[in-house]
Amino acid sequence: MYEKVVEIGLLFDFYGKLLSERQYIIIEMYYLHDLSLAEIGEQLKISRQGVYDILKRAEDKLYSYEDKLGLVKKFQDNKKKLKKILDYANKVNEELTAEQNGELKNHIKEIKEIALDILEKN
Amino acid sequence: MYEKVVEIGLLFDFYGKLLSERQYIIIEMYYLHDLSLAEIGEQLKISRQGVYDILKRAEDKLYSYEDKLGLVKKFQDNKKKLKKILDYANKVNEELTAEQNGELKNHIKEIKEIALDILEKN
Repeated sequence: MYEKVVEIGLLFDFYGKLLSERQYIIIEMYYLHDLSLAEIGEQLKISRQGVYDILKRAEDKLYSYEDKLGLVKKFQDNKKKLKKILDYANKVNEELTAEQNGELKNHIKEIKEIALDILEKN
Repeated sequence: MYEKVVEIGLLFDFYGKLLSERQYIIIEMYYLHDLSLAEIGEQLKISRQGVYDILKRAEDKLYSYEDKLGLVKKFQDNKKKLKKILDYANKVNEELTAEQNGELKNHIKEIKEIALDILEKN
């Protein structure tokens, strides 16, 4: 179950805005706020079965967007690659001796900052 | 017009798979193969007006996906950032003297290769 929560959470981050308002709210209540189907049904004044059906349709929609656009996969691939850039930049930084000029270190710092910036904004 | 073609081309790259088959084909014929509305109508056996309506709806859909997900904007932002990483990596490379060890140069080469790889796959 935990894995599913993480998976839906990621899909929801990327494609949540493409869901209908009701689908969006129900995914949020169930997966992010951890409410039960019965609790959601009470709040929205629909049956437990009704909540379940909307939830399933919303999940299917999220998976189908990922099938078509693959943004989560791309995001995870890019994350790994950007972390490698950071690793290499750190290694270069460590190996530059104190005598080696400060400009080189600044360039490496810039590389690290940009890589982190891309990581954060994706 | 040229700018619009480029813009729709980019949106189509990112969101084309979310269009209906007919919308997809008509965008392709009009923007990528440069056919006229009348020519497309003839091929698909629908009126020129019918083609126009589907085209407009398809364009609206592409713009609306961009409004919601902003993938084209993100792609263009990342492209600029990755190019900066490449620039800095090139500068570091130039400034490393021949005596400075080959391992450092290899790390920089790796950074450049990964940045290029991300650029190509986005």
